[in-house]
Amino acid sequence: MKYLVGETKSGTAVFAVNGEKAVNLTALNAEIGDDLMALIQTPSMLESVAGKIAGAPSVDVSSITPALPVAKPGTIICLGLNYTDHIKEGGYEIPDYPALFMRGKNSIMAAGAPLVRPTCSEKLDYEAELMMIIGKGGRHISEADALDHVFGYTVFNDGSVRDYQRKTHQWTPGKNFDDTGAIGPFVVTPDEVPAGASGLKIESRVGDEILQSSNTANMIWSVAQTIATISEYTTLEPGDLIAMGTPPGVGHAKKPNPRWLVPGEVVDIEIEGIGICSNPIVDEKDHAASVAAE
Amino acid sequence: MKYLVGETKSGTAVFAVNGEKAVNLTALNAEIGDDLMALIQTPSMLESVAGKIAGAPSVDVSSITPALPVAKPGTIICLGLNYTDHIKEGGYEIPDYPALFMRGKNSIMAAGAPLVRPTCSEKLDYEAELMMIIGKGGRHISEADALDHVFGYTVFNDGSVRDYQRKTHQWTPGKNFDDTGAIGPFVVTPDEVPAGASGLKIESRVGDEILQSSNTANMIWSVAQTIATISEYTTLEPGDLIAMGTPPGVGHAKKPNPRWLVPGEVVDIEIEGIGICSNPIVDEKDHAASVAAE
Repeated sequence: MKYLVGETKSGTAVFAVNGEKAVNLTALNAEIGDDLMALIQTPSMLESVAGKIAGAPSVDVSSITPALPVAKPGTIICLGLNYTDHIKEGGYEIPDYPALFMRGKNSIMAAGAPLVRPTCSEKLDYEAELMMIIGKGGRHISEADALDHVFGYTVFNDGSVRDYQRKTHQWTPGKNFDDTGAIGPFVVTPDEVPAGASGLKIESRVGDEILQSSNTANMIWSVAQTIATISEYTTLEPGDLIAMGTPPGVGHAKKPNPRWLVPGEVVDIEIEGIGICSNPIVDEKDHAASVAAE
Repeated sequence: MKYLVGETKSGTAVFAVNGEKAVNLTALNAEIGDDLMALIQTPSMLESVAGKIAGAPSVDVSSITPALPVAKPGTIICLGLNYTDHIKEGGYEIPDYPALFMRGKNSIMAAGAPLVRPTCSEKLDYEAELMMIIGKGGRHISEADALDHVFGYTVFNDGSVRDYQRKTHQWTPGKNFDDTGAIGPFVVTPDEVPAGASGLKIESRVGDEILQSSNTANMIWSVAQTIATISEYTTLEPGDLIAMGTPPGVGHAKKPNPRWLVPGEVVDIEIEGIGICSNPIVDEKDHAASVAAE
């Protein structure tokens, strides 16, 4: 199944996507609600509508304004360096534990929404990442069982304000500016992609300019290993989000000069078989004025 | 006002504390609910019961089992090193920005609840900290206005699993083991303490053994500066929790040997004018068995 949570004239709903067309599942069963949480928490709810999808009216995917797949994720955990080609490029040893940090909910927004460059910094950077959405929660989940705990996969742009990320050794501020982490728009269930969403091409682009290009097969910690590692210390819950790190080619490492994002540009993050997360870069002042005018 | 959120035979409620006695505010107005969020979001709600407190029946504070002051905090942000005496002791320069990290909601629990030592590590450590609860939210809050955004202050034990904290440069795992961050039991409003809760004695103890003893006047970043610094990058929201860092004397730095917490001990964190957060150390296996038996 390929899901899209989004807004239409009749409100925010969960859609089942087939090519360029989408069927409103919430219209078929109102209990499905306006994000994926109900389906995550009660997978059997899908059965109530599965038989009706083929005969239901559909709309163009392009007519839907994406919303967050999980409107209020309980926890958002992100891996730092997780691509072997980036490690090799830097001449580093492969570390024996992932660098983990957290993002707060104000730092994320939907695909399509403004990705806000703050007034206090011009060092806004992109990071193409695979993101998983936890289905079944748990603690001490074994690597062997871990993939049973994945509801689906989506695309993440782990937008980072680099000078604030490096203010100290803890990356929190630079990873938590409001409206810098873009999620979506599509969520694919595990049966739609290879095991652990490995072997998928992942890219970031601005227009025709390819900024990052790699493959999720190059991740050091697989999806299954990551779930096992994180659930050793914390109970994962349905709807938690885990971002899987970014391949090489980020803006701050570009030679001879860093390649920062500037207002007016549109960043596309694409993962093969999942979709494209596309967000315009907007200056904080312009964004604030736009929000105030709404 | 000094609040206590806790459980009695008649359910979880918000209490107003006066010495050893407490009045059930939720019984006076059911809209106050079972944690402080309603009062944080609607401060005028207090007026509905203020005139009735003096004449209302009271119970012994000791008969109330503490619950979390905010049951589902949106964001929990913690400062690292923030005490000048600890900086001096280590011979470090005072940094120009606070080390900030985040805790997830599964890592916290109420005063009195088990503080769980995980099976995977014996390096469980205490950290006495002042914690503020955000009242009015906002972004780009100035230092001059910041104290108007504090709902109240409480006590925090930032329980840390040191080997997992140092697995990489990012402290997240060691700061996020389930049931390691103790909060409460009392929340005092700003009028009950000096401005910014500065000048208060802060201690951690196990029985008669004083482990940390300092004063919140020794904090490098004040409460007001911290709100200004954090709200530069993110919108603070009502009920968000911010922990203000710990003074010297933590277990891993004790000489000649580290002083780890072991099951059977009870850790007390006390802040003058606020109260004592007291939690028993329980082995993960015993805790899991106890939860399963409930």
